[in-house]
Amino acid sequence: MRYAVLGTGMVGRTVAARLNSLGHEVVIGTRDPDATAGRDEFAAWREGDRDAADVGLAGFAEAARHGQTLVNATAGKASVAILAEAGAAHLDGRILIDIANPLDFSHGFPPTLDPVNDDSLGERIQRTFPGLRVVKTLNTMNCRIMVEPARVPGEHTVFLSGEDPEAKAEVRALLHAFGWPEASVLDLGGIETARGTEMLLPVWLRLMGALGHTDFNFHVQGARRGGAGGLVAGADA
Amino acid sequence: MRYAVLGTGMVGRTVAARLNSLGHEVVIGTRDPDATAGRDEFAAWREGDRDAADVGLAGFAEAARHGQTLVNATAGKASVAILAEAGAAHLDGRILIDIANPLDFSHGFPPTLDPVNDDSLGERIQRTFPGLRVVKTLNTMNCRIMVEPARVPGEHTVFLSGEDPEAKAEVRALLHAFGWPEASVLDLGGIETARGTEMLLPVWLRLMGALGHTDFNFHVQGARRGGAGGLVAGADA
Repeated sequence: MRYAVLGTGMVGRTVAARLNSLGHEVVIGTRDPDATAGRDEFAAWREGDRDAADVGLAGFAEAARHGQTLVNATAGKASVAILAEAGAAHLDGRILIDIANPLDFSHGFPPTLDPVNDDSLGERIQRTFPGLRVVKTLNTMNCRIMVEPARVPGEHTVFLSGEDPEAKAEVRALLHAFGWPEASVLDLGGIETARGTEMLLPVWLRLMGALGHTDFNFHVQGARRGGAGGLVAGADA
Repeated sequence: MRYAVLGTGMVGRTVAARLNSLGHEVVIGTRDPDATAGRDEFAAWREGDRDAADVGLAGFAEAARHGQTLVNATAGKASVAILAEAGAAHLDGRILIDIANPLDFSHGFPPTLDPVNDDSLGERIQRTFPGLRVVKTLNTMNCRIMVEPARVPGEHTVFLSGEDPEAKAEVRALLHAFGWPEASVLDLGGIETARGTEMLLPVWLRLMGALGHTDFNFHVQGARRGGAGGLVAGADA
């Protein structure tokens, strides 16, 4: 399949390389491809990661034209503007896997969230581009875990939020290809539930501080208990 | 030990009964003890729960005078006013176990958080009553799990936030008495980290909706990996 990954930071590069390793045709989108190609960090990645050499590099609009499925790995504060730059006409009917978080670093570290509480980046993107089929996922963990969940031993959870069941099914299949077992994928419901997963970032940031590393992930323990068997009522008896 | 549990809702009643079952002298604090005693729900609890019969009932100030350690199980929006009513003079030097969340139901369900993002209820209480030794904990799960963690099979996490190491050590000992294994208690640091755990509520609420029950809890998978052994650097090698 043809993927466009918007965003050239560590998250975008990590996801792009992994998609490439799975045999997909991947283009990374950026504002100014020449400037990006000239940046040491980006050049070092393309030369040093065997899965990166084949990844294309293009402007946002050309990348979006290429991608059957798009991945939003841009800084959350810039995501809506970048998607507008990519061109709404290129977005209609496409799946957007939104792995970004609307972190606001303007008041220092740790960042706050904007929007927060009664809105989310996922919803804002879906509202602004109604033809896009937005699936919010993977935004609650370090990018290396996104594409290689076995980095963290034991069961842990990846959330899904979105309005389009077919889009969610396609994203679920991609998560399996990344290594996520079926039991780890937790569908929270519509895109409104992105408010919940984006608001995990503040405790994620503080866990990073307390633990001194980022090789952790949230697991919803007991999630399957209520499934189909009335076990909750049984537990109350 | 003498405990005062502020708040007569399901959370306060559940914690009070559990403390009583552990042999502590427990008083529940409320605004109007006669009115509370006359409420069907409260009366049914006192008659129906064998651990509830011995729990005292008193006004906020009298309860706070009784308690060597206080538990804030009030509605988060009312907590600061209720602690003021209890009397700052009764709070100096006491430990306050803050298990409340600043949920705002004024815009319907699911509630939002206020304060959020750049402040938290835990910090607000600590700022308003500097003599109180606030420990934020247990606010990220259903109250039955708080006092009986084995309701949820497998490992799962209870967070600690607070400025006072001795207070945190005492609260940690109480958590062990409730049934929490040492490995499940995750100290995030100072009271500022309550921003993170309070902001877990939005995803908790959406998980309740998606799963159809509340017998789940968050587990931080991989938390121990970074501990003391440089395993993170090793994993990067």
